[in-house]
Amino acid sequence: MTTPTLSRDPETLLAEAATGNRVALARLLTMVERGGTEAEAVAALAYRSAHSYTVGLTGPPGAGKSTLTDRLITTARRGWPEVGERPAEPLEQVAVLAIDPSSPFTGGAILGDRIRMQDHATDPTVFIRSMATRGHLGGLALAVPGAVRLLGAAGMPVTLIETVGVGQMEVDIVGAADTTVVVVTPGAGDAMQANKAGILEIADVFVINKADRPGLREARRDLEGMLELSMFDGWVPPIVETVAQDGTGVDSLWAEVARHRAHLIETGELAARRQRRLAEELRRVLGVRLALDVEQLAGGALFAEQVSALSSGETDPFRAAAALLDR
Amino acid sequence: MTTPTLSRDPETLLAEAATGNRVALARLLTMVERGGTEAEAVAALAYRSAHSYTVGLTGPPGAGKSTLTDRLITTARRGWPEVGERPAEPLEQVAVLAIDPSSPFTGGAILGDRIRMQDHATDPTVFIRSMATRGHLGGLALAVPGAVRLLGAAGMPVTLIETVGVGQMEVDIVGAADTTVVVVTPGAGDAMQANKAGILEIADVFVINKADRPGLREARRDLEGMLELSMFDGWVPPIVETVAQDGTGVDSLWAEVARHRAHLIETGELAARRQRRLAEELRRVLGVRLALDVEQLAGGALFAEQVSALSSGETDPFRAAAALLDR
Repeated sequence: MTTPTLSRDPETLLAEAATGNRVALARLLTMVERGGTEAEAVAALAYRSAHSYTVGLTGPPGAGKSTLTDRLITTARRGWPEVGERPAEPLEQVAVLAIDPSSPFTGGAILGDRIRMQDHATDPTVFIRSMATRGHLGGLALAVPGAVRLLGAAGMPVTLIETVGVGQMEVDIVGAADTTVVVVTPGAGDAMQANKAGILEIADVFVINKADRPGLREARRDLEGMLELSMFDGWVPPIVETVAQDGTGVDSLWAEVARHRAHLIETGELAARRQRRLAEELRRVLGVRLALDVEQLAGGALFAEQVSALSSGETDPFRAAAALLDR
Repeated sequence: MTTPTLSRDPETLLAEAATGNRVALARLLTMVERGGTEAEAVAALAYRSAHSYTVGLTGPPGAGKSTLTDRLITTARRGWPEVGERPAEPLEQVAVLAIDPSSPFTGGAILGDRIRMQDHATDPTVFIRSMATRGHLGGLALAVPGAVRLLGAAGMPVTLIETVGVGQMEVDIVGAADTTVVVVTPGAGDAMQANKAGILEIADVFVINKADRPGLREARRDLEGMLELSMFDGWVPPIVETVAQDGTGVDSLWAEVARHRAHLIETGELAARRQRRLAEELRRVLGVRLALDVEQLAGGALFAEQVSALSSGETDPFRAAAALLDR
């Protein structure tokens, strides 16, 4: 898979990627993931272009998100279903971003899932990419939106974003999708657990996966109970039952995603959401820029001077900070 | 307890607090906790003065930290034990900062502990204060060191800092103490759990509390096993067994804390630690200052302009951030 003659120029790479060159696209994604000046050069191109429609999947480990994503790839390729007079349009390509949290405790399971999903790796109409925290400032919170815009610029009409876990980082990342799917399993625990992490507010569609297992009724009752306590304006998250293992219900899930998309387009909420997301991205970039300033300040001689003054009781942290920022 | 005639001037309040006026001290602590200009005015006074020797206690919920802290108050008042030719000096006062995490799930238990500890509330030689996250930027990470310096300035020779839980916030706060005590209970789970959260690196003294319960040997073996795998320069954390409920071992614990303190003083590490801590505080204040800048930028007309430009594809988040920071 090495292509020693491939350009390192983002513009050339993006032109290649748009014609279907997966190695060029992978190289651009690596640039985005690494951050820094190369990521900025890619962003300068990608943000000019159309959005990829993003569907985020989140839920507790073991809920079967990877298998569900795997099934959705196939279903999504059939395109958005007929809505009113618009006929169904098959999608030429589907992209998947699998977000690997940095935790070493779940690394093994994710790797297994990824290998399983590689069944699609030989399918030229599917582009699968894992993204992990690389430890640079801003990390995935900056890299994921950049990657999604890049995929849009490369001509991917739909991107599925899958995360593991229900932590705040996952909520931030998946909650920034156009449609957010929250996956739980039968039994009374999952829905409550998900709710604690603030999942309820970001869910556009609920899935009870492994619906052939005992506890389906309890899970549905829990979700319905939580939904009853919530306020919605215009869109009430539907609850879909699936068995990802054999594909049961996956068509219904995709139909609900499509219905949500149609709702967003008709109400103008899609554009509004995307604008809010851009504002959030800008805020994060500002935060990272200023955090880098702190790092730079902390490495300097003036910082050391102020720490000495603090040690001898000549100043306090607030005055010391003001003195540093005045420079 | 209302004293309507009490000054609101930090300098006057600190002079009052230093003579034993607890209402004045409580008022100053509230200023520190709230942040903002009042906290800065207090810091300008407090950082001139001597440090309170801080002993941090952390460990998983249910390890008995509150009962242990309660017992330590009494023991600590007897002062630092005789070291070499220095005689024991009784301490006139002991301060306790009980750090309440913001989680609503454990709030009840903490409240119970606090009420229990109020046995000391009528004791004029003990000053107990709960601190909670108030949600302002920087929160406890800024307020706790400020509070500790204030307690030092008010003449408290020793401050015990107790937290609930073993999360990153607790590690940051308690790890900034002069001596950090990590409390676990018998059985194989606690030590491992604590180790995951990075507790091992910050522990100066280990306590196996509830040492009368089964599993003491396993807990000790776990701790010793972890200690064997670690590198130490000069100080190997001792393991003390206590039964806080009846006071068993609490004298030994205090003796180990005193031995650690003597080690820090003799090696010059106490001054070095405190200087590192001041550098970390300064870094945090800088971070908060710059985060406030982001909030201010995000509320302005220029930010809205850049978001519009992002929406229309005229710019990308990196160029937009640069444009905002250039102003």
